[in-house]
Amino acid sequence: MDNGGVDGAAAAGRWRFGPNASLASVSASSIRAVLDKVIANIRDDGPRPVLPLGHGDPSAFPCFRTTAVAEDAIVAAVRSANFNCYAPNVGVPPARRAIAEYLSRDLPYKLSTDDIFLTAGCSQAIEIALSVLARPGANILLPRPGFPFYEARAGVNGLEVRHFDLLPEKGWEIDLEALEALADENTVAMVVINPGNPCGNVFTYQHLAEVANTAKRLGIMVIADEVYDHLVFGSNPFVPMGVFGSTVPVLTLGSISKRWVVPGWRLGWIVTSDPNGVFKETKIVDSLTIMLNITTDPATFIQGAIPQILENTKDDFFEQTINLLRKTADICYDKIKEIDCITCPRKPEGSMFVMAKLNLSHLEGIHDDIDFCSKLAKEESVIILPGVTVGMKNWLRVTFAMDPSSLEEGLGRLKSFCHRHTKNST
Amino acid sequence: MDNGGVDGAAAAGRWRFGPNASLASVSASSIRAVLDKVIANIRDDGPRPVLPLGHGDPSAFPCFRTTAVAEDAIVAAVRSANFNCYAPNVGVPPARRAIAEYLSRDLPYKLSTDDIFLTAGCSQAIEIALSVLARPGANILLPRPGFPFYEARAGVNGLEVRHFDLLPEKGWEIDLEALEALADENTVAMVVINPGNPCGNVFTYQHLAEVANTAKRLGIMVIADEVYDHLVFGSNPFVPMGVFGSTVPVLTLGSISKRWVVPGWRLGWIVTSDPNGVFKETKIVDSLTIMLNITTDPATFIQGAIPQILENTKDDFFEQTINLLRKTADICYDKIKEIDCITCPRKPEGSMFVMAKLNLSHLEGIHDDIDFCSKLAKEESVIILPGVTVGMKNWLRVTFAMDPSSLEEGLGRLKSFCHRHTKNST
Ligand SMILES: Cc1ncc(COP(=O)(O)O)c(C=O)c1O
Ligand SMILES: Cc1ncc(COP(=O)(O)O)c(C=O)c1O
Repeated sequence: MDNGGVDGAAAAGRWRFGPNASLASVSASSIRAVLDKVIANIRDDGPRPVLPLGHGDPSAFPCFRTTAVAEDAIVAAVRSANFNCYAPNVGVPPARRAIAEYLSRDLPYKLSTDDIFLTAGCSQAIEIALSVLARPGANILLPRPGFPFYEARAGVNGLEVRHFDLLPEKGWEIDLEALEALADENTVAMVVINPGNPCGNVFTYQHLAEVANTAKRLGIMVIADEVYDHLVFGSNPFVPMGVFGSTVPVLTLGSISKRWVVPGWRLGWIVTSDPNGVFKETKIVDSLTIMLNITTDPATFIQGAIPQILENTKDDFFEQTINLLRKTADICYDKIKEIDCITCPRKPEGSMFVMAKLNLSHLEGIHDDIDFCSKLAKEESVIILPGVTVGMKNWLRVTFAMDPSSLEEGLGRLKSFCHRHTKNST
Repeated sequence: MDNGGVDGAAAAGRWRFGPNASLASVSASSIRAVLDKVIANIRDDGPRPVLPLGHGDPSAFPCFRTTAVAEDAIVAAVRSANFNCYAPNVGVPPARRAIAEYLSRDLPYKLSTDDIFLTAGCSQAIEIALSVLARPGANILLPRPGFPFYEARAGVNGLEVRHFDLLPEKGWEIDLEALEALADENTVAMVVINPGNPCGNVFTYQHLAEVANTAKRLGIMVIADEVYDHLVFGSNPFVPMGVFGSTVPVLTLGSISKRWVVPGWRLGWIVTSDPNGVFKETKIVDSLTIMLNITTDPATFIQGAIPQILENTKDDFFEQTINLLRKTADICYDKIKEIDCITCPRKPEGSMFVMAKLNLSHLEGIHDDIDFCSKLAKEESVIILPGVTVGMKNWLRVTFAMDPSSLEEGLGRLKSFCHRHTKNST
């Protein structure tokens, strides 16, 4: 048999396959990778429990347990045996209809069932949205600080990333003038995360209107990541970007992960908030449908439970979550104010996070944010995310979504750590 | 403000975004797209129920209902509230451990927890495996006929596809000589689907050993799609490709979709069946981990239920499924033998499908397989998948995984259809 000269490739240990090199650059910056590095410093024999102020998942705390309504809906769907089957790739119709109604409550027009595409969490909504937009030479505008999953997926899809800044001195509003200068004829979209991760800000109606006008002028779509929708507890109400859907077509991404505190359930959506039908006309809807045909789906019985979950959850449950987050946001802001070497430019009013600036010049023997977080993990068993991960070196992203006493304990340890490492402290 | 000449782009209706053109070519060939076209012919006012012999999902038939053990495990996991949280991106440790033990039963070595990566069904296992392998210029060898999800994902990832044939006259064995001629120094992997979709064949130990030796000689990995593992009911036992893991490194892909008849639950795995650690050495494991960090996960409570599902399912349940499939495979083969214009080269011995060749010369006014299936849908409300979708024009892929009386009814309608369209029939 003629092997074309490849004989012995294996014998010599030379396997022909190898890793996808483009993934290596993606990895270094992922929240997971950096958190793992920080966590590696925790001493297993530490006397105190580890306090996770690093990631946005309070579901393990009993005070953040989801509503029984949601659990019951899942159990009923499983027991019915009506949802063991594959689902249509865009989602089962009753779930799409229920989400259309749920989201339409906050909009000046009605979404239809056809506007809703079910995904396995907002993460998969991002995966799919960016795959649909990727074409040779295209670029996308992402916020800095932001959510690095966008950078990672853009990298995998070969979409060029350009960053626009969120301005701490303006309550983390978008620097729209700079954004406009960044865009060119290959720019296809900008991403708006509201309520904000990592800044905990909530954009005003007025600012979102300006975003819409800017995007319209540039001819680009807005990808509105509203995974923290309704998690607001300051003076600004939550305004969905879709309100401006007749100015500019909006792809709204969301999920039940945060509002229902069930990030493990993996149920999200992509919504065409686009009353003028631009996405249909420009074939974005066709591309979305194709992508959904060739990607995995959320579990069918979770889809089957969605109408009950959306229709039967009581306001009580939502209010309880909001009250808890308001309280923990207050604790977080007040405690950080007591710490000299950390500054919080703005009190958080939404989501589960706040950004705080490290004043390294006050600190002894701390090189940067990663060093700070690694030593904090080692000495205090407290996990905080280094800001570099979300695009801001020498800042910290602190989660306040946890039970109040653990949070106070964690921030207390942070304070002693800072005190201990402050220059010239006695 | 200087807009760099982009002002008015939107006003003129010229949005800068557009669909990802590479998706259009992917779509035409997807099973979903072709089935939708076929189904569009069904008359809504037809007097008879629609019989789906087109896709592999018998879960809606009461005789194929999953075991109560599995439903109970899900309900217990939801009720515990221990699994509302995000899972580690590679999966929760007890599920990984349980799958390692489950799969090790059929292997000459023990898989470890670290060999198991959880995915949202075997579909996502394919998505991730192909993303990891994609690098500029690489090509992958896929079976023809096959499962077009592979072609679609290779397309999205820019992996070149080269097809090797499965030989009907040899019981659908791989044409290994031709495969060897196809490979070159840019070939990274070959895909083996066993038990076979769409052919319903089960490879012998001997043939799989030859596959392993060939792959080793070529220096390529084997991707073993074993989503139909253990669904065998002929003379060949199911042999996992991982048995040959010390000859050639094998990436085993699987799920609970088929054996537990719960395709809607979306729980699968990628397994490094690789006792020599080639995947670690060649950094494939690193790439897998990175990809899993930036893709969505299976629902955490379904992961949480896996140990109970794998450990507590009784053999009775599996036997009952196998007996049903054996019976329906027999019905399918025997009924097709009675139809002149369709030939089935081989009785199915595994999975849920069989391939049958259309003898168009016997038929009047039928142009090809798509035309055949479209007219069959219209006239008889029976859905069958045109072979062109799986790579074999003018063949049919018939599913027998359904309740026996519906299957007999469907094949009866197929027979009358063929009779009615046979040339010179009186
Ligand atoms: C801004 C942002 N988008 C998307 C996600 C992903 O959400 P999901 O759990 O629905 O996948 C997160 C999760 O933390 C997030 O912070
Ligand atoms: C060969 C093959 N691989 C993978 C899959 C996907 O399986 P899952 O439901 O686990 O995603 C299927 C489904 O039909 C299949 O036939």
